[in-house]
Amino acid sequence: MPGGPREAYERVRTILEESAAHVDGDPCVAYLGPGSAGHYVKMVHNGIEYGIMQLISETYDLMKRGLGMTDEQMRSVYSEWNAAELDAYLIEITANIFGASDQETGKRLLDEILDEAKQKGTGKWTSQDAMELQAPVPTIDAAVSMRDMSALKGEREDAAKVFPNVAKKLGDEASSFVAGLRDALYASMIITYAQGMAQLAMASKAYGYDLKLEDVARIWRGGCIIRSALLEPMRSAFGARPDLPNLLMDEHLGREVSDRLADLRRVVASGVQAAIAVPAMSASLAYFDSYRSAWLPANLIQAQRDYFGAHTYERVDEKGDFHTEWQGSSGE
Amino acid sequence: MPGGPREAYERVRTILEESAAHVDGDPCVAYLGPGSAGHYVKMVHNGIEYGIMQLISETYDLMKRGLGMTDEQMRSVYSEWNAAELDAYLIEITANIFGASDQETGKRLLDEILDEAKQKGTGKWTSQDAMELQAPVPTIDAAVSMRDMSALKGEREDAAKVFPNVAKKLGDEASSFVAGLRDALYASMIITYAQGMAQLAMASKAYGYDLKLEDVARIWRGGCIIRSALLEPMRSAFGARPDLPNLLMDEHLGREVSDRLADLRRVVASGVQAAIAVPAMSASLAYFDSYRSAWLPANLIQAQRDYFGAHTYERVDEKGDFHTEWQGSSGE
Repeated sequence: MPGGPREAYERVRTILEESAAHVDGDPCVAYLGPGSAGHYVKMVHNGIEYGIMQLISETYDLMKRGLGMTDEQMRSVYSEWNAAELDAYLIEITANIFGASDQETGKRLLDEILDEAKQKGTGKWTSQDAMELQAPVPTIDAAVSMRDMSALKGEREDAAKVFPNVAKKLGDEASSFVAGLRDALYASMIITYAQGMAQLAMASKAYGYDLKLEDVARIWRGGCIIRSALLEPMRSAFGARPDLPNLLMDEHLGREVSDRLADLRRVVASGVQAAIAVPAMSASLAYFDSYRSAWLPANLIQAQRDYFGAHTYERVDEKGDFHTEWQGSSGE
Repeated sequence: MPGGPREAYERVRTILEESAAHVDGDPCVAYLGPGSAGHYVKMVHNGIEYGIMQLISETYDLMKRGLGMTDEQMRSVYSEWNAAELDAYLIEITANIFGASDQETGKRLLDEILDEAKQKGTGKWTSQDAMELQAPVPTIDAAVSMRDMSALKGEREDAAKVFPNVAKKLGDEASSFVAGLRDALYASMIITYAQGMAQLAMASKAYGYDLKLEDVARIWRGGCIIRSALLEPMRSAFGARPDLPNLLMDEHLGREVSDRLADLRRVVASGVQAAIAVPAMSASLAYFDSYRSAWLPANLIQAQRDYFGAHTYERVDEKGDFHTEWQGSSGE
């Protein structure tokens, strides 16, 4: 393109800024970087969107099958959540969806919709490229594989006949469980944004995008599907520290998560015990627990790789690559 | 290639069969299919290998940080497991690894190895292509992202200073917990093989491999890294029903899993509560719980997609694609 994308952006800047959504007077539009930078940011936006949608659907499942709540009760819950700290477009539309009736049958429209989620591929691409970059985004991965699982409707119906007793009721008192569920969702959402932003930081280095993550958070505050009240503290976090490696390391956002960890643990454990799958919440919690763990049991994986494949290992006490002739190693 | 891969295989068949590992008199070698069929099967073998290695490393972490067991105690545990139903090459070498001393320092070699797992890409490719095929392999995905997480050693050390109190001790009595851990690992391993085999079935259709999964299970019984006593019942399952959509639907293997579900739930819930990340075990359990669930909350995801993107939805009561003008929908 003559002059390149930056110059092209500048030529239409006024039109873009006037037509964009505005938050606090700022237009939610920016030149993000060279080449595919803008497309990449939009792709990861959608990956985060997949993650949050899966997280919300898990809260729905826990309330519906776990607590036996009605659609109308859940509409109220999502509506209340959206009015407070969980203020987010995806929560807002969820409340509206629970309020919608089917004009023909008069029933809740949601209950007439088939539980097979389709996809156009942007979440999948986010996960696939995260793996390429070695950026862990397990919540997004779980959201992608759960869409795939949902599509196996016929197999699931067959399996349900062989393995019944799905989804026991939760023992908890509904109102206290729902309060914990809100906090668990809030913490998992922050962890999901953190995964996506960390992927963007790694992509920026690998692909030379030179992204300013403050700008990304700023333009996501309005007009996009993952807009939420959380984007302003994220913008502020990257504004204060442009090279922040992970949003969890921001003092405010890290505390927002750690203050709600007990609830997230309780909710995940409840789903696990009640046979209600909560893969995205579990993955979010495992991400946090492993990210903040100076030691992980991956030394065993290194040892196994060296044992069966002579792939060598690194040591804690010395630099370099080492190999051991392990007892009984067959050198495959 | 003149005559094609099948003919080429036939020409060297005798040499291959004589040099291959044998199990019950059968050589662990077979012509698998046209084109990239053999490479694809090896790739998914490695994806399953990643999954099982991550699962084993989670049992290590639960015993080490959760129960405070010594390396020598864990050597005994893995050795006992390998002598019974968990008879598997990866368990066998794990026991040997726990027995190995560093010749220079005299300490357990395992404790001198850095907890940053490397990878050559085959697990990643398995996950990436599973996503392409829409085959859910969440245990393998979790294993890939945990290798990536392990590599963020510096970030993890920094985060550990901000968020201490990692890895509480498990309250359970060690010997009863370890028995449940064995059963949880066994069930998760079956679920991991089931994911990989289901991916192969989908790949076979998509890529025209015409794979015989009985042959795949048969040749994996010997000479490869994921060989285990479980491969014979898998061979038998596909022998009885070549189009079996999922190993969990085999009567014997399905029962092996369902008999151990309570242990798997207890182990995952214990890790969740103790802040010891068990993402692969969690993902295995969620895979089972969602696979056997005739209904999943993906109807909400369908509704959300139609709400914000007019992507349409399917209904439970009627064929076709439907769209609703949702209240307040902005049609982005």
